[in-house]
Amino acid sequence: MGIRLGRNQYGKAEVRVVAVDRSSPRHTLVDLNVSSSLRGDFAAAHTAGDNAHVLTTDAQKNTVFAFARDGVGQPEEFGLRLARHFAGSYPWITGARVAVESFGWDRISVGGTPHDHAFRRSGGEVRTAVVTVDGDSEHVLAGLTDLVVLKTTGSEFWGFPRDRYTTLAETRDRILATAVTARWRYPRTDLDFADCFAGVRGALLEAFAATHSLALQQTLYAMGEAVLERFTEVAEVRLSMPNKHHFLQDLSAYGLDNPDVVYHADDRPYGLIEAVVERDDVPPAEVAWLGNPGFC
Amino acid sequence: MGIRLGRNQYGKAEVRVVAVDRSSPRHTLVDLNVSSSLRGDFAAAHTAGDNAHVLTTDAQKNTVFAFARDGVGQPEEFGLRLARHFAGSYPWITGARVAVESFGWDRISVGGTPHDHAFRRSGGEVRTAVVTVDGDSEHVLAGLTDLVVLKTTGSEFWGFPRDRYTTLAETRDRILATAVTARWRYPRTDLDFADCFAGVRGALLEAFAATHSLALQQTLYAMGEAVLERFTEVAEVRLSMPNKHHFLQDLSAYGLDNPDVVYHADDRPYGLIEAVVERDDVPPAEVAWLGNPGFC
Amino acid sequence: MGIRLGRNQYGKAEVRVVAVDRSSPRHTLVDLNVSSSLRGDFAAAHTAGDNAHVLTTDAQKNTVFAFARDGVGQPEEFGLRLARHFAGSYPWITGARVAVESFGWDRISVGGTPHDHAFRRSGGEVRTAVVTVDGDSEHVLAGLTDLVVLKTTGSEFWGFPRDRYTTLAETRDRILATAVTARWRYPRTDLDFADCFAGVRGALLEAFAATHSLALQQTLYAMGEAVLERFTEVAEVRLSMPNKHHFLQDLSAYGLDNPDVVYHADDRPYGLIEAVVERDDVPPAEVAWLGNPGFC
Amino acid sequence: MGIRLGRNQYGKAEVRVVAVDRSSPRHTLVDLNVSSSLRGDFAAAHTAGDNAHVLTTDAQKNTVFAFARDGVGQPEEFGLRLARHFAGSYPWITGARVAVESFGWDRISVGGTPHDHAFRRSGGEVRTAVVTVDGDSEHVLAGLTDLVVLKTTGSEFWGFPRDRYTTLAETRDRILATAVTARWRYPRTDLDFADCFAGVRGALLEAFAATHSLALQQTLYAMGEAVLERFTEVAEVRLSMPNKHHFLQDLSAYGLDNPDVVYHADDRPYGLIEAVVERDDVPPAEVAWLGNPGFC
Repeated sequence: MGIRLGRNQYGKAEVRVVAVDRSSPRHTLVDLNVSSSLRGDFAAAHTAGDNAHVLTTDAQKNTVFAFARDGVGQPEEFGLRLARHFAGSYPWITGARVAVESFGWDRISVGGTPHDHAFRRSGGEVRTAVVTVDGDSEHVLAGLTDLVVLKTTGSEFWGFPRDRYTTLAETRDRILATAVTARWRYPRTDLDFADCFAGVRGALLEAFAATHSLALQQTLYAMGEAVLERFTEVAEVRLSMPNKHHFLQDLSAYGLDNPDVVYHADDRPYGLIEAVVERDDVPPAEVAWLGNPGFC
Repeated sequence: MGIRLGRNQYGKAEVRVVAVDRSSPRHTLVDLNVSSSLRGDFAAAHTAGDNAHVLTTDAQKNTVFAFARDGVGQPEEFGLRLARHFAGSYPWITGARVAVESFGWDRISVGGTPHDHAFRRSGGEVRTAVVTVDGDSEHVLAGLTDLVVLKTTGSEFWGFPRDRYTTLAETRDRILATAVTARWRYPRTDLDFADCFAGVRGALLEAFAATHSLALQQTLYAMGEAVLERFTEVAEVRLSMPNKHHFLQDLSAYGLDNPDVVYHADDRPYGLIEAVVERDDVPPAEVAWLGNPGFC
Repeated sequence: MGIRLGRNQYGKAEVRVVAVDRSSPRHTLVDLNVSSSLRGDFAAAHTAGDNAHVLTTDAQKNTVFAFARDGVGQPEEFGLRLARHFAGSYPWITGARVAVESFGWDRISVGGTPHDHAFRRSGGEVRTAVVTVDGDSEHVLAGLTDLVVLKTTGSEFWGFPRDRYTTLAETRDRILATAVTARWRYPRTDLDFADCFAGVRGALLEAFAATHSLALQQTLYAMGEAVLERFTEVAEVRLSMPNKHHFLQDLSAYGLDNPDVVYHADDRPYGLIEAVVERDDVPPAEVAWLGNPGFC
Repeated sequence: MGIRLGRNQYGKAEVRVVAVDRSSPRHTLVDLNVSSSLRGDFAAAHTAGDNAHVLTTDAQKNTVFAFARDGVGQPEEFGLRLARHFAGSYPWITGARVAVESFGWDRISVGGTPHDHAFRRSGGEVRTAVVTVDGDSEHVLAGLTDLVVLKTTGSEFWGFPRDRYTTLAETRDRILATAVTARWRYPRTDLDFADCFAGVRGALLEAFAATHSLALQQTLYAMGEAVLERFTEVAEVRLSMPNKHHFLQDLSAYGLDNPDVVYHADDRPYGLIEAVVERDDVPPAEVAWLGNPGFC
């Protein structure tokens, strides 16, 4: 019996690379936050401070910038290029995980015309990609986070069990609001990732809007199901959705009614609903998800 | 000679009120963060713990919710209603400041049609209003914050003095990026605040995009000037604009050139440019700005 | 082939409960942030909006407050009480995870004497506990996060491989700084959790300070090893340690040397070192770690 | 009538400089976040993009690092050195404001002995200094922020007026908690700033603890008064103190009483109490406060 090193990884987190395509006067830009992690035999660094196997995190950062020189493409593609490079760089490196956050920019309109080189950040929503190379296998997760959505009606909540501590009133009409974090897995890498992302994002939004909700769980499942029904390229969808509570404010003490008009948007605590929606005929790939924050 | 109470104020900060208009099946919503501060004679609370003059901050919160029952309207209007109410509530309350943050929501499209009651947060940008009632005078500041903009070209920086510590190279082409915080003062309260806001916001964005920049100061001034030229309702504009540095990454160590393609978006430190652009024939109103964070 | 619900959980996140013990004039307080998640058969809520199995997250919140009435004790104990209660509340609930953050308070000294009922938050460091009940098994993770530590010397970094993108200079003396997130697993629940926590925390700090570091990986491993050597109650330690880079500032352009005096503390990117240090004779318990953010 | 440039300033914000004193084996370190702003004639940069007067923000950053080479001393002293340098660097620069945040570090104990070169961040509290040079005058504000304090008893709140919207119950015993932001002005610059800071901080803490509170306003005033009574070097104290509400949780629905034991620590909204406590025989110096965030 003894003490040993278990699972481990290391890398450079949050490399903020911006690449401009100036090939025409109508510039485009990509704005990324890239994190890489290497997996393999790094035991000597841990047990003896021997760095002979440690490709520096500084070099990982440099590689991100260097690879952007040739054009970035879609986040999934950039992640694949980087993860393949890292995993293939030295014999003792057997795997790599590259996580990419992509920030959106819209053109500023001047006199009604979108400008060639002036942009505005398009919002809090972030597109994500996580690419894992594990020996000979490759895994791609697309996703998004901080997509904040709300329905002013079309949401009920009733029929739940009542234990000693249940005081919540049932409701047939409430505000439903959440900040969607979604990741979905592509079992292939030869996809049009831009089209797929746009399609899946649209399916998530439409399902949120169109589902008459009896539970946030139901809305979550409908969103995942809509993605899997429309996109055969997707093997599974994982969703984490906080229930951002909007409580109807009691105004009766001041002689006012409140027919579903005035709400208090509360910060904490919040419900948190998390689930996997998956195809029953696709083999799982847990390594694709390893190292992600929280449930998805 | 002795110790005395100087300037003081108190109130309730960050009341998160959401109001839904259900008067038609096509719902609308307003989503606000409201902070109130009262000014007047509260000396006894400070020196003796005598609360006879202290309209509770809890009541201030309740008032925000109660006033939302009748409809909120524009942030400036809601601020005016609240500030007038507070300043007129008790003889010892001689002034009130109400600051409103307004968060935008867009309709979710389902099958190409904007949905009646499902919405998506429209981004990080926040509309602001600060209303101050000070005795018989009223002051309205409109504004916005966290409007993040970037130009991929059309920005130079050269001709600066070089002291012992100046090592920066001159440049004829750089990325210019900032997060605009702007506030502007209306000397009147009988305006179409929605139209004014949209117009001023558009003028700021267009001036940012259209100005060939020799300095962020020049861009800032051009933005303020554009507002004052187009909108006679505005007396002054105050702008705070961090220079969100994007440094061209040196790739030469790996045998790569970098013809203005790959940049590192740095977090800290950042330049910070702040100025007032004002009409020379309008009397100042410093009380309108009292209590705002930082320069504007 | 079809679409199905996979792994799922739901609960109430971030219940901020503060409990005061007034049994003597010398008050004590505990200040917690509690998150619960339930696991079991919640399929109907997802697929049909049937909430008959959904113990509300509101009730989970109420339970946290109600259980605090009888005294909270150590975070691990409070987590165990809650997780056992939730997992035993209904037949379809087969597991529960309760995560607790505990914020420290020190007594304020007045005239050199610690005050009976006035306190000061003791800092950014947070003590954590994660308790999982999974059918008949129980798992307890203790931990801490945001423990920020720094060494001004006693850290080297050299001997790493140099690929095309490696430009980093070797160093025999650098600042080493990190923000430790550590979790460790107790295979038993009948421990003096307060003593164990204090001991493990001390071992982590001492090993950080005393290890002459050739790599942050080596420091991390030494910290985990120190815990396992001193505390037989601990089965494994997982550590996530960002390398908070302090770069020696080049002052030569102004005619100044810099003999390891002036550093720039950079925000992003940062190295991120993560590993498990474990006993080789203890069976693993992955379910204990399920749902944690990131590596540990 | 026309449009003109009003008040303006620019500079480099948040330079994160760490300086190590290795003059003995027992190292010490200072860890600062420094922001500089220059004031003077920068009109041409704004109106014509002429940068001949613009000492670059990059040079300001370099100056911070260069000046740290000779030792930093107290934050107030470092601010004075920098502000005097900037204000004296070119004829058109007539003023400078230097704001310093100082982060504390404690030695890690190893076997009961404080270590020579290993440190732990001492908490969330931050020491601040703001130095303003304005022509021939110099102003120094010392301060602190994020000092979070709480009393479990010794706080009442009653006797307030009751308008239509007042529903709050009176209380003779509540939790009082706040995060103190305080700034105080020294009219002289030849002080032992370390001693003064420690003394004022102690006075603030003791007054918070020792005051039986009938209103947070009363506690605030007592804190300011204690400083002015003990320290003749201080001309005025400005305090901004959010009322971090801890609401007694109603447990009666589950058959439990709650004799001031279980509280909910709420995030938003919060009361916000702000005031100046000053000597009546010291001339004001508003320029010393110009550019600070919010009330103080």
